[in-house]
Amino acid sequence: MRTSSIDSGGGKGTTNSQKDQIERRHSGSSRGRISVVGIGPGDIDEMTLDAKKTIVEADVIVGYKTYVRLIESIVKPGAEVFSGTMGKEVERAKAAVSKALEGNTVAVISSGDPGVYGMAGLVLEVANLENVKIPIVVIPGVTAATAAAARLGAPLVSDFAVISLSDLLTPWSLIEKRLHGAAEADFVIVLYNPQSEGRKEPLMKANEILLKHRKPETLVGVVRQVGRKGEETVITTLKELLNCEVDMATTIIVGNSTTCLVGERMVTLRGYDL
Amino acid sequence: MRTSSIDSGGGKGTTNSQKDQIERRHSGSSRGRISVVGIGPGDIDEMTLDAKKTIVEADVIVGYKTYVRLIESIVKPGAEVFSGTMGKEVERAKAAVSKALEGNTVAVISSGDPGVYGMAGLVLEVANLENVKIPIVVIPGVTAATAAAARLGAPLVSDFAVISLSDLLTPWSLIEKRLHGAAEADFVIVLYNPQSEGRKEPLMKANEILLKHRKPETLVGVVRQVGRKGEETVITTLKELLNCEVDMATTIIVGNSTTCLVGERMVTLRGYDL
Repeated sequence: MRTSSIDSGGGKGTTNSQKDQIERRHSGSSRGRISVVGIGPGDIDEMTLDAKKTIVEADVIVGYKTYVRLIESIVKPGAEVFSGTMGKEVERAKAAVSKALEGNTVAVISSGDPGVYGMAGLVLEVANLENVKIPIVVIPGVTAATAAAARLGAPLVSDFAVISLSDLLTPWSLIEKRLHGAAEADFVIVLYNPQSEGRKEPLMKANEILLKHRKPETLVGVVRQVGRKGEETVITTLKELLNCEVDMATTIIVGNSTTCLVGERMVTLRGYDL
Repeated sequence: MRTSSIDSGGGKGTTNSQKDQIERRHSGSSRGRISVVGIGPGDIDEMTLDAKKTIVEADVIVGYKTYVRLIESIVKPGAEVFSGTMGKEVERAKAAVSKALEGNTVAVISSGDPGVYGMAGLVLEVANLENVKIPIVVIPGVTAATAAAARLGAPLVSDFAVISLSDLLTPWSLIEKRLHGAAEADFVIVLYNPQSEGRKEPLMKANEILLKHRKPETLVGVVRQVGRKGEETVITTLKELLNCEVDMATTIIVGNSTTCLVGERMVTLRGYDL
């Protein structure tokens, strides 16, 4: 079966199921290939079985150094590890492609899910630009939004929007437009990359924008280091948010108009009649 | 350490980490407890290690019949199984609480992630209404948005909004408002529950709304039965979307203005300079 391509006739394209792709990858062929793997929030137990198997079997591991440290206990002896810094994502994607072309089984790892502010798109872009025909599979993982939500209770449960406050690759004007748009339509809003040293303004501005649309008492969940040592969960309000300790490993979930405390948990009401 | 409650002083509350909570749950205590578990899209290998362990150890399994069938191979012999139908979520949540009060380890299962249109909020609400003090832990899983995205390539990768087209619990006027808001702010848009027998109008109306904000050639990914037998992935366009076969087990991902084909994959460009 072939992977479907764009079908302007509106018909159905048959497809390689993810399972087929992964089984071929594990079948022992010596051809190089890349898996872009979501390792989940941090704890090995929050990884999928498939992600773990992929990492355990990989000849080469490529990832940001913090994520490599999180999974190093399951990397096979003798595997080559490319452990890099923030800002070097393009280099890591190129290294992955290069290693796969040598015939290696490569695992490019991303925290959470690799398709949510992760490496999936970049690896595909680099491979395509270099016109290389190697199998590339994306292995989904538990993204920070859902990991943080699980700690808080059930704040997502209904329609939600995910917005990164990092303006390194996205113009701030577009981030603002999305904050306004999401808040006005009463989405629960998940903020990724909310703050880092030297960059406190984005969260301050985001808070100001959200207060234009939401009551100051709107519940906000703040989860630091989700899935890692030092994990911390706080439920606060929009008006108090800027008093919380926040860093780049923090996920912030801003409730919508129905979000409330249920016991000690943050819950957005789906609308069930109880 | 205590779970933080609402902190109007903006201070930090210390917390039971998820790991602490889960370890206490697995410690062999005979006290009843509930885990609301995300089983992922369907294949056991796409479940987290923690989710699998929780289901394997559960005395009681509660879930919608389709999801129970997906995981029945790992349910321990002798476990009690409450397998229900759509529309009976409240009854299942009550049964879970009742069984936990008898001292059982209960796993309430949801497809994907239990905090995304799943059972997490409802179980917490029911337990709170009945004023019962039993440990309840939410075990996150791979939600359909990220599972479908992995099949398609990397369509999420940037800011995205998740909207359910089911108006059983949410007024259609609010769904429309969210579609407009998300489209206008150039979010990638993930549609859950897009269609079922007798309910084709929501997707038709959603398509019409999105065409007011996006070009007809905007890429749309349609993944049916993600993670299950019969999984099918199609990449099409907004103008052709209504010609695709769509059902309730379909996840639709509507690209934003930068989403394009990279090779045969659907990728939203993050903005890396290549």
